[in-house]
Amino acid sequence: MLAGADNILILYHQHPDGDAWGSAFALFAALKKMGRRVRVGRGNDIIPQLYSYMGDYCVAAEDDVSSPAFVVSVDCGNAERLSEGVMAVDLSIDHHGSNTMYAKSTLLDQASASCCEIVYKVIKKLGVSVDPYIADCLYTGISTDTGCFKFSNTTSSTHRAAAALIDCGANIKGINVAMFDTKTRARISLEGEVTNGMRFFENGKIAVALISLKAFERSGAIETDAEGIASLSRAIEGVEFGITLREKPGYYKCSVRTTNTNACAVASHFGGGGHIRASGFESTVPLEKLIDEIVSECKKQL
Amino acid sequence: MLAGADNILILYHQHPDGDAWGSAFALFAALKKMGRRVRVGRGNDIIPQLYSYMGDYCVAAEDDVSSPAFVVSVDCGNAERLSEGVMAVDLSIDHHGSNTMYAKSTLLDQASASCCEIVYKVIKKLGVSVDPYIADCLYTGISTDTGCFKFSNTTSSTHRAAAALIDCGANIKGINVAMFDTKTRARISLEGEVTNGMRFFENGKIAVALISLKAFERSGAIETDAEGIASLSRAIEGVEFGITLREKPGYYKCSVRTTNTNACAVASHFGGGGHIRASGFESTVPLEKLIDEIVSECKKQL
Repeated sequence: MLAGADNILILYHQHPDGDAWGSAFALFAALKKMGRRVRVGRGNDIIPQLYSYMGDYCVAAEDDVSSPAFVVSVDCGNAERLSEGVMAVDLSIDHHGSNTMYAKSTLLDQASASCCEIVYKVIKKLGVSVDPYIADCLYTGISTDTGCFKFSNTTSSTHRAAAALIDCGANIKGINVAMFDTKTRARISLEGEVTNGMRFFENGKIAVALISLKAFERSGAIETDAEGIASLSRAIEGVEFGITLREKPGYYKCSVRTTNTNACAVASHFGGGGHIRASGFESTVPLEKLIDEIVSECKKQL
Repeated sequence: MLAGADNILILYHQHPDGDAWGSAFALFAALKKMGRRVRVGRGNDIIPQLYSYMGDYCVAAEDDVSSPAFVVSVDCGNAERLSEGVMAVDLSIDHHGSNTMYAKSTLLDQASASCCEIVYKVIKKLGVSVDPYIADCLYTGISTDTGCFKFSNTTSSTHRAAAALIDCGANIKGINVAMFDTKTRARISLEGEVTNGMRFFENGKIAVALISLKAFERSGAIETDAEGIASLSRAIEGVEFGITLREKPGYYKCSVRTTNTNACAVASHFGGGGHIRASGFESTVPLEKLIDEIVSECKKQL
């Protein structure tokens, strides 16, 4: 379908991450190399500085595709999350098991750790040679969606794709430093706030971290600085339940992270939910009473 | 040489890391599968709990090789660092460019990110099938020596080896959690001490962290908890020089870490040395004066 298409609009999921950007920009570049008119539909999104090594080329080279003849989405599981809003999509390329099959055709592989792994196969099938720019885009998605090959979604295919992209000239040194070895000062400061006040229960099996409104303010952090911070307490040796309480005006946003135990069971007790290793809920119970209740609920699961 | 050998002693480098243990245990298991009598010469080393998934089998299955007919060393660049002290070595399998060629024969590949990558090739050449245990050992060395495929020594061969080992049954989920997603409480506490007192100069291009004797004590840390802590300040966005001052009785141990600038030039000024991105020196100059001098020296390199 893509081989026969022209005047193409590429969409991705709202609040794009490395895999969404990487998939969109790699497919964009491949279609440009095939001589097609193509645009990445970014809605009101501004490409973050962190991703400018991918975005700059796209912004410079995109065509005016105001009435597309073919719409393809990448890394987007449902129509409501499309980067330019709900519209008819001809082809969805995706790895989310929850894909609602909103497109006319869907290329879905939920065994793929990243959408970029699928886009890589599509680009090869289109007969386009993978240049260093495309390799950078695809490596970005593959590495960020797997926590640099650390998460349990990593497979032998993931590593084989990475190997091939390195051979195609991907700048893994620069990408790895930027994505996995750089923290903002506010993030560092926030981590300090979190770890300093951490409390342990049940011989260190339960860890409770608090991010008060004041501490958040003091750190100078913005929301993106707090991403993934709920995993800190869980990553401590011996901890089975990592609890993070984020103070919001009038309530607490509670994250439950586990390695082997059931996080969802705990969150469900408080009216929340999520996945077995990562769940959450909100509560207006006062802090000390809330901690007591959470610890008591975690103990039941130990 | 290995194919024709029996009564084999395997040595590794003192203060073994994941690559040294992984190389030794993988080669041990392969030679056992070939029906050879073999022992891993551990001197006074106790295998850390962290590596017991590799060590337990070796301890249970090793033979009494008191007068070895063949000595092979892995991941060891010079005879002085051999795990059972200086002795005649028939074969050195290594990836250190600094290998002193102390063995009768040397299989050296300094382009390999880890020694385990070379041992993997040796095991395949010996015709031994890689079982899940051997795959675990080799994956451990490959992943730890590359910071889980993040460091700049990672190559396409590294990823191809990882892919093959996953297909052989390596338990990457368990290994990745243990090696890259678990911190001791003392480590977390030490990181808090380091980040809380960090000082910035030259618009955030120079970061200076201090670990006082008191702070180290307060954290409850032991030496292994402090490993790699000097990289924290360097990993902050915008930092070109990450300086860590570790207070010792009567002097400061200073680490200089950089991303793009010359760390060795700064360390050399104070009589130290090292690599271009990671250097160090010691100084008895009082704290505030020492910081002034270091900052001034870094400025010259900016």
